[in-house]
Order: sequence, then C-alpha cells, then structure tokens
Amino acid sequence: MSNHEPKSRSASRTDMTEYVLPQHATVYGTVFGGQIMAWVDICAAICAQRHSGRPSVTAFVDDLLFRSPVHVGQVVRLSGQVVATFRTSMEIEVRVHGEDTVTGAVWPTVECFVTMVAMSDDRRPIPVPALLLESDAHREAHAAAARRRQLRLSKR
Amino acid sequence: MSNHEPKSRSASRTDMTEYVLPQHATVYGTVFGGQIMAWVDICAAICAQRHSGRPSVTAFVDDLLFRSPVHVGQVVRLSGQVVATFRTSMEIEVRVHGEDTVTGAVWPTVECFVTMVAMSDDRRPIPVPALLLESDAHREAHAAAARRRQLRLSKR
Amino acid sequence: MSNHEPKSRSASRTDMTEYVLPQHATVYGTVFGGQIMAWVDICAAICAQRHSGRPSVTAFVDDLLFRSPVHVGQVVRLSGQVVATFRTSMEIEVRVHGEDTVTGAVWPTVECFVTMVAMSDDRRPIPVPALLLESDAHREAHAAAARRRQLRLSKR
Amino acid sequence: MSNHEPKSRSASRTDMTEYVLPQHATVYGTVFGGQIMAWVDICAAICAQRHSGRPSVTAFVDDLLFRSPVHVGQVVRLSGQVVATFRTSMEIEVRVHGEDTVTGAVWPTVECFVTMVAMSDDRRPIPVPALLLESDAHREAHAAAARRRQLRLSKR
Amino acid sequence: MSNHEPKSRSASRTDMTEYVLPQHATVYGTVFGGQIMAWVDICAAICAQRHSGRPSVTAFVDDLLFRSPVHVGQVVRLSGQVVATFRTSMEIEVRVHGEDTVTGAVWPTVECFVTMVAMSDDRRPIPVPALLLESDAHREAHAAAARRRQLRLSKR
Amino acid sequence: MSNHEPKSRSASRTDMTEYVLPQHATVYGTVFGGQIMAWVDICAAICAQRHSGRPSVTAFVDDLLFRSPVHVGQVVRLSGQVVATFRTSMEIEVRVHGEDTVTGAVWPTVECFVTMVAMSDDRRPIPVPALLLESDAHREAHAAAARRRQLRLSKR
Repeated sequence: MSNHEPKSRSASRTDMTEYVLPQHATVYGTVFGGQIMAWVDICAAICAQRHSGRPSVTAFVDDLLFRSPVHVGQVVRLSGQVVATFRTSMEIEVRVHGEDTVTGAVWPTVECFVTMVAMSDDRRPIPVPALLLESDAHREAHAAAARRRQLRLSKR
Repeated sequence: MSNHEPKSRSASRTDMTEYVLPQHATVYGTVFGGQIMAWVDICAAICAQRHSGRPSVTAFVDDLLFRSPVHVGQVVRLSGQVVATFRTSMEIEVRVHGEDTVTGAVWPTVECFVTMVAMSDDRRPIPVPALLLESDAHREAHAAAARRRQLRLSKR
Repeated sequence: MSNHEPKSRSASRTDMTEYVLPQHATVYGTVFGGQIMAWVDICAAICAQRHSGRPSVTAFVDDLLFRSPVHVGQVVRLSGQVVATFRTSMEIEVRVHGEDTVTGAVWPTVECFVTMVAMSDDRRPIPVPALLLESDAHREAHAAAARRRQLRLSKR
Repeated sequence: MSNHEPKSRSASRTDMTEYVLPQHATVYGTVFGGQIMAWVDICAAICAQRHSGRPSVTAFVDDLLFRSPVHVGQVVRLSGQVVATFRTSMEIEVRVHGEDTVTGAVWPTVECFVTMVAMSDDRRPIPVPALLLESDAHREAHAAAARRRQLRLSKR
Repeated sequence: MSNHEPKSRSASRTDMTEYVLPQHATVYGTVFGGQIMAWVDICAAICAQRHSGRPSVTAFVDDLLFRSPVHVGQVVRLSGQVVATFRTSMEIEVRVHGEDTVTGAVWPTVECFVTMVAMSDDRRPIPVPALLLESDAHREAHAAAARRRQLRLSKR
Repeated sequence: MSNHEPKSRSASRTDMTEYVLPQHATVYGTVFGGQIMAWVDICAAICAQRHSGRPSVTAFVDDLLFRSPVHVGQVVRLSGQVVATFRTSMEIEVRVHGEDTVTGAVWPTVECFVTMVAMSDDRRPIPVPALLLESDAHREAHAAAARRRQLRLSKR
C-alpha cells in the first residue's frame, strides 16, 4: 500500500534532559530562546535519524511560541516523536518543558514541529520508511501533519 | 497619534558575522539548523534591546525555511532590523546568508521574523518606543507585520 | 522505622540523550572518557536533586570501566536512578550506552555508581527523603549499595 | 606597477557584533582580554580571506592597549578592514568598541593591526591581490602600514 | 627482564592549571565534579601519550573521592605522572588541588588512578615502553599499581 | 627604597598544558592565533593574581610574532612568570610552545609580554608587592621591562 521502498516502522520517542548552566542563559538568568531552539533541532535530528536510518538535515521549523521561561539551575526536558512521514521527509513533534528539581514544578515552555529530510551518501534526499499508523490517534496526527505540510509548500 | 510613552526611534540595523567552526556543525560538515536559530535569536535580541533600551525576551519565532546549507570554514552573515513595534513587543526581521570567502559566493540561508518583548526591572512587559515610519516601504512593512501579529494572536 | 524527617519517595528515572559533536571527541573521533564522566555527573546530579528536592554535590564516584567507544555522529544515552538513600547522601546508578542511529546498534559503554550529598541553604549536608523500597529487587539493590558504602567509608 | 599576479581589489569592511555572555567574562563580570583578542583574530581572518580568496593564518599582532572594559550583557562591536597588502601578507586594522544597548553608550575598547598570510593548498605563502588605493587617505594608511612592517621585520 | 619491545623511559610529570569560569560551575558557584573528571582525563591522556608516543584511550578510572570544592574565580591545579606500565596499558596518578590566588590557600580536591591503553594506527592495543623504576619509591609505587590492576581485572 | 606598601615576593612560575581539540582550530586543523592569545591572557592573569593577591585585568599586550603552528591532537604548553612590578601593574612574560606527544618534538610558537593591573574591591588600581630581584639576571630582566614600559607610555 505504500510506495516507500524502505519497510515501515513504529513511532519511538527521544527524551532529552538538559541542566541549565550559566552559558545557556542571558545575564538575567533565563535560557536564551535560541538555546532552546538549538536543543529542539538536535532532538528532532536524533528522531529523524532513528526513524530513517540516515543522516537528516533540518528543512523547516514551524512557528514557535515561547511560554514560561526556564532559569539557570533548572532543567529543560525535551520529548520528540516522528508524527508523519512523506517521501523523503519526516515531521517531528518536539515538546519542551521546564522543571524545577527543587520544588518539583514542571511547566510547558514551547512545542513545535520540525521537518527533517533524510540524506543519501551523496547528500541528496532519499526515501524514508513509512510511519506505521497503529491507532486512530496516529492516523489523525498524520492527517494534521499532511495539512501543515500543504501550508508550508504553499508558502515557498 | 501614538499612545506609546517612550519617544519614537528610527530603525537601525544589526550586522553579525560568524565564522563556522567544527563545533557549530554536524559530522557531515554543515551548520546545525539549531545553531543558526541560536544566532538569529541573539541578533534579534540585540536589535530589540537597541530599539527599546530594555532587556528583551523571545516571545515568538515565525516559521523558518532552511535553504542552502553553510559548511565549516565558510561564514554566516546575519542582518537584523526592527520592522514593527506594538505596545510592549517588537517584530524583528533577520536575514541570514552563507558566504564562501574563498570563492566570494553569497547565498540566502534562512530569513525570519522574531517577536521580542521588552522587560521592566521587575521582569514584566514594558512599553517600547514607536518605530518611526519614514517611508512608504516602512509603512507597508509595518502593516504586513501587524497582519502577521493578528495571525499569531489567533493561534494562541 | 526510619529516622529521616523528609517523607519517603519512589525511585524515578532520568534519561539523557547526547548527540556526539566534534567538540566532545579526540582527534581520532571517539568521545573523551572525561566527557562521558561529565555527562554521568550531570545525570546523577539531576537524579539526586529530583529525589531530595535540594541542590546536591558529588561526593564519590565508584570506579569506571570503559567498554566500547562512541564516535562523532553517534549518540550517547544515559539512564540514571537513585538506588539507595542514607542520611544525607544518595547512591545513583548511571548506565551509559552508545547508539548508532543509522544502523540501530546499541552497546554498553560504562556503568557506575555516584554518591551525591544534598545541601542546605547554608551549604551543609541535609537529610534526604528515604527511598521507598517497593519490591525485593529494590531491597536487594539497596543492600548492595549499603555494602558499597561500607567499602567507601573504609577507604577514607 | 605591481608585480602581484592576482588582480587588485578595493577595501571592504567586516562587521561583527558579539553579545557578552557569562562564558566570555571573569568572575568580576568583565570580558577577558583574551576573549577580545580571539574575536579580533577571527575578524582579521575573515577580512584576509575575503580580500585574498585564500585561507589565511595569523603571523603578527601589533601591541594592544585595553581601554574601558565591557561587561556581561553588553555588546562588543568589531570592525575590520584590510589597510595594506604586501607580497603574500595583508595588514588588517580592527577597531573594537563596547556598547551598552540599554543606555546606548558606545566606547572604544581596543584597536590593533593584525598581519595575516595567505596560504596555498599545500600550506605555503601565496601572493595576494594588491589593495586598490583609491584616495589620499588610503595611500597614507598604506604608507603607515609599510613603516610598521619595517619595524616588525627589524624585530625578528 | 622486560618483554616490552619499545625501550624504557623515565617518569615525567604533566602540570595543568585551569582558571574556573562560570561555564565550569553549578549555579551555586562550585565546579562540577564532572568537569574535574574531564580535566583529569585530559591530564592522564597527555601523560600516557608522552610516555608511549601513541594515541591513548581511557580504559578504567579508579574510584574518586571529592574533598573540598573549588569556586568560580579560583584555580584548579592538576599534576599527573605515569606510575606503572603493563604490556599495552599505563596507570597514571593524577592529583588535583584547588587554589585561591587571592589568599594563596591551596587544598586537595581529588586524587585518582586512570588506566590508559596505547593504540596502534589500526586502533588496536600496542605495547608501551616500560617505566624505568629508578628508586625504591618508584618500585613500591609500581608494585601497588600492580595490586590495583589485579583488583580491576578480578572485577570484570 | 620601595614605596610599595605590600611586602615583596619572589617570582613564581605558572605552567599550563592545553590539549588541542577541534574547537580550538580552523578547518585546516591549526590552532587559531586568537585561541593562543586567549590562553596567554589566562596564564598572565593567574601569574598576576598569584603575585598580587588581587583580581587583575589586562592593560596591555606587547606585539606577538607567531612562529610554527600547532595542530589538533598536539599540545600547547604555556609558562608564565612575573618579570617586573611597577606601582599598580605587573609585566608578565609568557612563553608558548607546541608539542607533539607522539614524536616528542617541541617547538616555540609565540612569546610575549602582558601588562596586568591589580584591582581593589571597588575596581580601582591598587599597589602590588614589589618583585624580589634575587640575581643579576632578575635585575636585568626588570630593567628591560622598565624600558618596554617607557615605550608603551610614550605610545598612549
């Protein structure tokens, strides 16, 4: 039913935990938005490479709304998952939370969709395994991703 | 005509030049998308602080389309400018180019809009000076920014 | 039966995922042992702070046997868990694996026991919540940790 | 009149803007002199590579007088320009200013002359394009550079 | 009496001095245990490479007891020395002290034994020169190292 | 004969050993001149703080001639020493060598004189202990430093 040549794969999750050091933060003690974007990109790249078995590069990052900040000494938690696959690209959802390990408080910081493209050895886009859609929730997430992709293509 | 209390200011540009080192790049020698996003965020923060005279934090980053990559040993050039001001926020446009100093080639990498919010000493949003709109081009850019802002507010 | 004043807590796990960049590796492309030790220490510190709700400092690291190396472009996975609590200290087990996201291979790199001490606001050791021992496996792990602690104390 | 084989080029400027983070500064909050020297070197290298179209290495740095310091949260601005060319070397002037984006204050920090040598593919010095001297100011700057070069050669 | 093929060498010392910056420390201003471990590993690697004339990798780190902490603005001093050689491995002792350059105080932080293995060009263990044992103190240190090695081998 | 209030001190040496990692080097594998300057500055600062017992800032760096380069995987050795003291400033000589730990080769890279000023708690220059001149060599080195200082003052 799929015209992808590689065999399909179930979704798996990539969890990252980052301890916020002074080098990640402004002089006011809150993590730079850009540092969080850098972690999001690494999380998405690992998801994409785990799914496709290929080095993958960032093609598109959907818009990012920054909610509550994270401070030096707190923790940034990232959780990424491939939510849709197209011919040579994958859409990865990354959710980012702040956590204060002293109080136990956890709060949403940002969530976003990153589109990564799998690369062949000669650095050209290469087909990726289709994502197995094992539940209605998966199928709905994939359909929503396909609509976001149409929106992106229309913007180019 | 403006209800901003601080006096208005003309737009000024922030230029950054980054030499790409191995620590900015993947094992394949191309800059991480996340590293470029980190530089974009710093460029936008400097623009916002220069305009508002206040520490400023990232509130929103519009979607990012990554075009041609930049390699280790090449240069990343960023140019940022405040294009619109609202009550406590500013929209900054950042254009990023790759440059090969050996061949002289220059190419577009990414361009995007970052929304920064100016902060008071007790870490609350504070009014910013209005941007002086000194030409029709400026007025059109501001109107386009206002439409993007409506779109962002509708997504929250 | 416990004289710890803070109430007891169940064990929870801290997962970290690190993408190996050139800056983490020797000129031969393999991660420095010292870089892995640095990640182990951060993983243990997060575990200790999550359990105790207090800033925690490294007191002791048991010996470390480095098995197969991890290369630039591969991934280091760390998984930490508090296995025993004493009056003001906690023993954390951290298991480290290498992973090649392209081939899917995963292999053990190092595993070790880190002893962290919880600190009061005036920087002195402070009692920690007892670990809830909810199964025979937990009770055996705690007893083994107590024996390791006796060995450490005898070495001072 | 020139025995340089590559065709001559006009001077162009390289502007860098660096946001001062805690990692650039001493425990007293002022940028390390050595960090500023590191940025000066990168600025000069980009100037030299843009002019010569060749990878270039640092051969000589004239003495550096550090004036007012720059603090964490402030900005370091560098502006570099090739002021003279010799057979295989270029003299680049780099001016460094501090800037407080909140108050708008700008002050001189250091200015200096860096001599870079262009390298061939087999890592040997290679002739560089002559600098076009398009005004009396350019000709005087070049003559002053030639005198500084005599002084350097006499010190070896 | 030795079946090592490379000719034997006297012990030499490697001294390192590290200025503690905010990026090396927790939010409480004390150096991370993991950062000290990273410096210990580099010190041991330099000792091993100087002795063997070969790239060397970390095989084992004996347990580490952290004594008094070192703060931002203070100095970490490391002193490493090869104390024993086996067929393809070397045991290096690294002593770490904190130093306050303002008060002149110096205090022990950690001391430990690192086992490094010399590598051939095709990344396999390769024989190392025997350490010349030039005094009774050297011979006793070597015998103690041999006993530690037996203990390590018994743990595998 | 001295009007320095703090009591005088003998010269002592600061030795640093740096392992060259990819992050210190250009894409051609040689250490940036600016990275070496950054290490020189830290070495001089430690010398100055050890001598004066005060935080010290860089005031002047005499010209730097870069000799043979150092490559990734090699070692940079720095050795600094206070050679002269004036009222609130110290001149520190820093000698830098490259070392290949595999071949055992050692070569001069750069040597230079850094002038550091000791700072009081309210960030103003403060008198430093006089350097004890314990031999004719020391007295000659001090006299040469005094001549270099006259030259620097004449350039301001």
